[in-house]
Amino acid sequence: MFNTIAIVGVGLIGSSIAHNIRRRGLAQQILAIEPLAEVRAEVLALGLADEAYGDVAQAGKADLIILATAVGTMSALAAALGPHLKPGAIVTDVGSVKAQVIADVAPHIPAHGHFIPGHPIAGTEKSGPSAGFRELFENRWVILTPDEGADQIARQRVQALWEACGAKVTIMDATAHDMVLAITSHLPHLIAFTIVDTAVQLEDSLKADVIKYSASGFRDFTRIAGSDPTMWRDIFLANKSAVLDILARFQEDLGQLERAIRGSDGALLFDKFSATRTIRREVVEQGQAGIFDPREPDPELSPGPQSLNLYGA
Amino acid sequence: MFNTIAIVGVGLIGSSIAHNIRRRGLAQQILAIEPLAEVRAEVLALGLADEAYGDVAQAGKADLIILATAVGTMSALAAALGPHLKPGAIVTDVGSVKAQVIADVAPHIPAHGHFIPGHPIAGTEKSGPSAGFRELFENRWVILTPDEGADQIARQRVQALWEACGAKVTIMDATAHDMVLAITSHLPHLIAFTIVDTAVQLEDSLKADVIKYSASGFRDFTRIAGSDPTMWRDIFLANKSAVLDILARFQEDLGQLERAIRGSDGALLFDKFSATRTIRREVVEQGQAGIFDPREPDPELSPGPQSLNLYGA
Repeated sequence: MFNTIAIVGVGLIGSSIAHNIRRRGLAQQILAIEPLAEVRAEVLALGLADEAYGDVAQAGKADLIILATAVGTMSALAAALGPHLKPGAIVTDVGSVKAQVIADVAPHIPAHGHFIPGHPIAGTEKSGPSAGFRELFENRWVILTPDEGADQIARQRVQALWEACGAKVTIMDATAHDMVLAITSHLPHLIAFTIVDTAVQLEDSLKADVIKYSASGFRDFTRIAGSDPTMWRDIFLANKSAVLDILARFQEDLGQLERAIRGSDGALLFDKFSATRTIRREVVEQGQAGIFDPREPDPELSPGPQSLNLYGA
Repeated sequence: MFNTIAIVGVGLIGSSIAHNIRRRGLAQQILAIEPLAEVRAEVLALGLADEAYGDVAQAGKADLIILATAVGTMSALAAALGPHLKPGAIVTDVGSVKAQVIADVAPHIPAHGHFIPGHPIAGTEKSGPSAGFRELFENRWVILTPDEGADQIARQRVQALWEACGAKVTIMDATAHDMVLAITSHLPHLIAFTIVDTAVQLEDSLKADVIKYSASGFRDFTRIAGSDPTMWRDIFLANKSAVLDILARFQEDLGQLERAIRGSDGALLFDKFSATRTIRREVVEQGQAGIFDPREPDPELSPGPQSLNLYGA
């Protein structure tokens, strides 16, 4: 499918792509770009790449370059990479924010190259080269947000790569993507970080009990809040306006529920909690099933209590 | 262990207790109290009880009466039950709020009976008689909050029942319990209801995309927000002061993160997101592992991506 693919940033997503390239023979050669020598050694030891470099300019040798780092780094990476791109080379990314990434990366792509921005809706809270696995993208959505003038062949090649990884590909406007993700992913993560932060600041004796009895719900928020701090810092800064917009709506709704509790308005609480059940039914019906992992039964298919999966971004 | 146990309210918790009584022979007879004839028929058809009644006064025949209904109903149930209690009978409950339940129930228990309030930290988002299963309490905490003058034999008998169900029992002050649960369970559920409520109010086209791409985090909040509306309305009203207290702290913390995003204060975001990782590590170390279900691998033991479990209350 490709001669050489360069993966810039071999974390959870990058290493999962590498597993797919290897297993499904999607490229003859994989180059890895990682700034730290020990991570490069780990990537090579895990068999995730044939060659590993610290300098992103080396990725210029590839036909396809996948930027899979925190979104705050992409501007500098694209600036360093741009001058070294081969004619016809395709650059794509996996960032959870699209408008800002496009603004950061597109100006550095020369006319003889192509930029097809993308975002796989898949992940776990784990990070690093050893976190990846082949099935991560199985039956999951990948959203591409190419601009109107984007090269159709390049777009199709990126799409084909993701489909070969088991994903379903859809095309979307970058701004719409950022608003949808602000609601479905960025706000939930911000809330989880906040709840756990609230617990961090509790008196020690109370905090010990909170950890001990965390299985009543809190525990799952700690898992989300255990996600990579750099990645999430960058997401909130890069998607600032959509996140602040949806956060304002959330705070308004929370204020309404707070007033209902304070005023013992049971009818309002009951109505709100019943309305949310409708959305749940629609989600189950459209069943973007939980992460597919052969070691785990599909939560949407297994009987009885279902397992939950929360994704990176 | 007991001659006759009455289960008042055969929902997720009540039916799971019934499965344990049956399988482990913890009582010779089970009485079920359910107001609706069709639910009584279902309970009998499922083999969860030997006899089923609509009137809680019938529970007076039992040695142990377990109140397993929404906490808002307990005052009326205790008032109707109290005059019919046998000498030495023990009343316990499974409510997620303890101070209010004690205030509602204790005055109705005659001097010849005993009240041992309790709360199993276990659940799923499912409800109804068919939702229960025997392993629900396996290795989970049950918190008992008896008052200082409570009969020690009665407390030990309730404790022994829970231990026979596979649970670990701890004794706690009712007010401390309510604050810990406000943080670990009630606030997380309130937040999940709110996020999903925010989505309910979105424009239709955006809402459709939110459901389609819900696997990026939102989906799991819809599951929590799919929990029983009556049960949750009652919890928020019964634990009002602790919930409002912890909600105020949460909103303060959320405001701080909001200002950091607005002001592009990446350093503060990074510090907060790093601190929350510490709590996650402690939770994993103390590993209240996810719900034990033989159909599912233990999420703390299985390799790779872990499944999440969020509990009823």
